[in-house]
Amino acid sequence: MTAKVYLIGAGPGAADLITVRGARLLARASVVLHDALVEPDMLALAPNARLIAVGKRCGRHSSAQHFINKQLVDAAQAQDDEQVVVRLKGGDPMLFGRADEEMRALEAAGIDYDVVPGVTASLASAASLKRSLTLRGVARSVVLATRSRAADSDEIQRRADADSLVYYMGRDQAPDIAREMIEAGRDAATPAVVVEACSTNRERSITVTLRALADGALADWFDASQPCTLLIGDAFRQRAIRAEAPASAEASAASKHEQGVAA
Amino acid sequence: MTAKVYLIGAGPGAADLITVRGARLLARASVVLHDALVEPDMLALAPNARLIAVGKRCGRHSSAQHFINKQLVDAAQAQDDEQVVVRLKGGDPMLFGRADEEMRALEAAGIDYDVVPGVTASLASAASLKRSLTLRGVARSVVLATRSRAADSDEIQRRADADSLVYYMGRDQAPDIAREMIEAGRDAATPAVVVEACSTNRERSITVTLRALADGALADWFDASQPCTLLIGDAFRQRAIRAEAPASAEASAASKHEQGVAA
Repeated sequence: MTAKVYLIGAGPGAADLITVRGARLLARASVVLHDALVEPDMLALAPNARLIAVGKRCGRHSSAQHFINKQLVDAAQAQDDEQVVVRLKGGDPMLFGRADEEMRALEAAGIDYDVVPGVTASLASAASLKRSLTLRGVARSVVLATRSRAADSDEIQRRADADSLVYYMGRDQAPDIAREMIEAGRDAATPAVVVEACSTNRERSITVTLRALADGALADWFDASQPCTLLIGDAFRQRAIRAEAPASAEASAASKHEQGVAA
Repeated sequence: MTAKVYLIGAGPGAADLITVRGARLLARASVVLHDALVEPDMLALAPNARLIAVGKRCGRHSSAQHFINKQLVDAAQAQDDEQVVVRLKGGDPMLFGRADEEMRALEAAGIDYDVVPGVTASLASAASLKRSLTLRGVARSVVLATRSRAADSDEIQRRADADSLVYYMGRDQAPDIAREMIEAGRDAATPAVVVEACSTNRERSITVTLRALADGALADWFDASQPCTLLIGDAFRQRAIRAEAPASAEASAASKHEQGVAA
């Protein structure tokens, strides 16, 4: 007599950017353990569920993760087997989500579970910006990364050399990332786009250069309370800048919420 | 009097792995231009739409893309401004989707459009396999790639050195990719997982080593008519193999549809 657990990706933020499968499971859920990053509108999709906020926004420690694992197992074991327990994670569970530790805990306890993927922030950011992560002749591959003290110089070098690079950032990391990329040889004029609170009604974005980012040009722009992605690469140049763009496209190419900053 | 166009990511295949926003727009659509890869169940979400199949499954040529661009613009201009025209693309539009060319064509024609992101196949594959793309102490970043004749040796080297690497593959590419990775120094014992027709009722997956893949161990396994992803890296080792997995987890850790192959 144990509920089935679903690890569900909530997507980037907007309540309608969860998958149809995820939304249906939330509607059936009796318990939802959710990240701090999940929006209130999304939680409203689970009207019958007991909502349990777990996890810190950033710098989550192993001890906290251990406690989440235990809460998840306990919740499943406290329900009967027709009920649904949801572990709702921002973005996609299998990318920077520490899902492995939760899956191990469920497996060790013999609890049945499935994983429902979600739209990760890099895809949603590219959609908001209307700029493709891959671009013929410009970007053939994409690196998804977080800033990590464990990244060695070879790893930093690979990131600096990547065609398109997307960082999932915590607060205050942007200048250090930009400096690291320039020191590893990336052209300081490379476009760097920050998308904050992607897909929510607080979404903002801005395009600068790696040099401007490294020099702190956005110090006053960031809202430290919001999650953000940093997209680095020539694919993120505004279409109007590229030579082959027809003149008539220039006005409409810039994203509505784009704000200019002297680089 | 021109309809608004939505470039929508259909997700990996299953009709309920599109986003809620994408499903709602399909329900309102009067025209849907869709990739060959999009499943019939997904198209049933657009009961009022004229369905137009565009694009080839693989090896799509520029001329074909040019024709798709024209069809998209023509469809929008033939509708009035309260109607919805959908360009439905497998996976996510901004990743290996050649959306840039379609966005340029829309911008040049002065047609209003938005992009709705989708679950890309690498995330859905990881969800099906129940193995995280990132893994503490094992994989801090992920490279998403396709095999391209244009990739130079530096790019091949970066892919070979990537923590986790996911290839979006056409048919017959797996052995060449595996040989390329081994020649660039990747350990031949590295796990390589193929997920075919992810999230559909035809989904299959198999885990081998890079060496086995390079040697053609899966020659008889592949169904050339199905799309697939190839996941390479230590993060994709079955949890039961890793030393720290508790014994009780071994049976449940293996994916239901996993089939063993002598490596």
